[in-house]
Amino acid sequence: MQKRSVETRNRILRTSLRLFARTGYNATGVARICAASRVSKGAFYHHFKSKEAVFLKLMRDWLCGVDDHLASAMGRSTSVPEGLRAMASEMRHVFQAADGRLEIFLEFWQQARRNKAVWSGLLAPYRQYRDMLAGIVKRGITEGSFRPVDPVAAGQALETLAVGTLLQGVLDPRGARWDLVIRRSVGLLMDGLARRPVAAPGRPRRSAAGR
Amino acid sequence: MQKRSVETRNRILRTSLRLFARTGYNATGVARICAASRVSKGAFYHHFKSKEAVFLKLMRDWLCGVDDHLASAMGRSTSVPEGLRAMASEMRHVFQAADGRLEIFLEFWQQARRNKAVWSGLLAPYRQYRDMLAGIVKRGITEGSFRPVDPVAAGQALETLAVGTLLQGVLDPRGARWDLVIRRSVGLLMDGLARRPVAAPGRPRRSAAGR
Repeated sequence: MQKRSVETRNRILRTSLRLFARTGYNATGVARICAASRVSKGAFYHHFKSKEAVFLKLMRDWLCGVDDHLASAMGRSTSVPEGLRAMASEMRHVFQAADGRLEIFLEFWQQARRNKAVWSGLLAPYRQYRDMLAGIVKRGITEGSFRPVDPVAAGQALETLAVGTLLQGVLDPRGARWDLVIRRSVGLLMDGLARRPVAAPGRPRRSAAGR
Repeated sequence: MQKRSVETRNRILRTSLRLFARTGYNATGVARICAASRVSKGAFYHHFKSKEAVFLKLMRDWLCGVDDHLASAMGRSTSVPEGLRAMASEMRHVFQAADGRLEIFLEFWQQARRNKAVWSGLLAPYRQYRDMLAGIVKRGITEGSFRPVDPVAAGQALETLAVGTLLQGVLDPRGARWDLVIRRSVGLLMDGLARRPVAAPGRPRRSAAGR
């Protein structure tokens, strides 16, 4: 694609993201997107088959961005607990994105319930995350960081914390420091997965018999 | 209210719930609700000021139902961990409700983002749950079940598990046994809160000094 064409395409995506986040997918028509992006309908349909295609592209881009952050966090870590902590910490990029990406998260789920194509597009990567997290917990057990829990259940719990924090962050952005909530919650959950008894850092570990 | 009037009101609520869950709040007009409930517009406006009033009533009823289940679960329990486990178990009623109550959960959050009245109506009880859970964790620390974690952070983690499981249950009802997911996730989190090191039942607890 030529430079101008790439710019037009990106402008359509950016504008659609903003409109979907602000007024919702259903209430946003192609005509509105074209007007707000300053492109003709012809130009719009040159780049995208439909409004749905724009939506799916935004969703895929969002998920790819999250993927990149998570994969690089895990890649930099030398143990599974360290990796999971780094992944939880990377979620701050999701919460800090000010361009409507977080707001549109709810829109994705909402549309997914009613639109088969969106449903498949959202569910496939979501299930991949679930499997990836189960695999990570499995590795944590193998490396001796975690006790032999059910990796699927633990992976699901981690995914549930991510999904739950995202949803709360959308509804009540100022209700909490959501980037901290996800880190602390994952920390508490990992204490539950930990092979060894949890002890305060730096303090000598005492026998539980002294209680 | 006379019996017939109560029946009419309940029929409007039931029908609205089904329509909101199936086609969404915005796409469901009062005319449609009246037709599907077999009531006149006059009868509708006798009972409810607006569509929004119906929606808020459905939301309050939903939250009250959840409240009742959770409070009775905690009331029957003799310790905080037992109570939290019972509360997680009570969530099955939410997942098993076949009348659209779970489906409409996402609609509540979606509308809350755009409608100040819905936002206040959803946020106030949601924050109450958060405070209630923090209070329960605090009691768990006092009674010696939990180590001295930050009760607010732990309460938030519990709430996040509930919210995250609900959202996943809406989108992907057949993707997992969500009633089990919430129970297991809360179990793993409580292992992280537990005062005593996690040990296989019946085995003597050993000092951590042997690490």
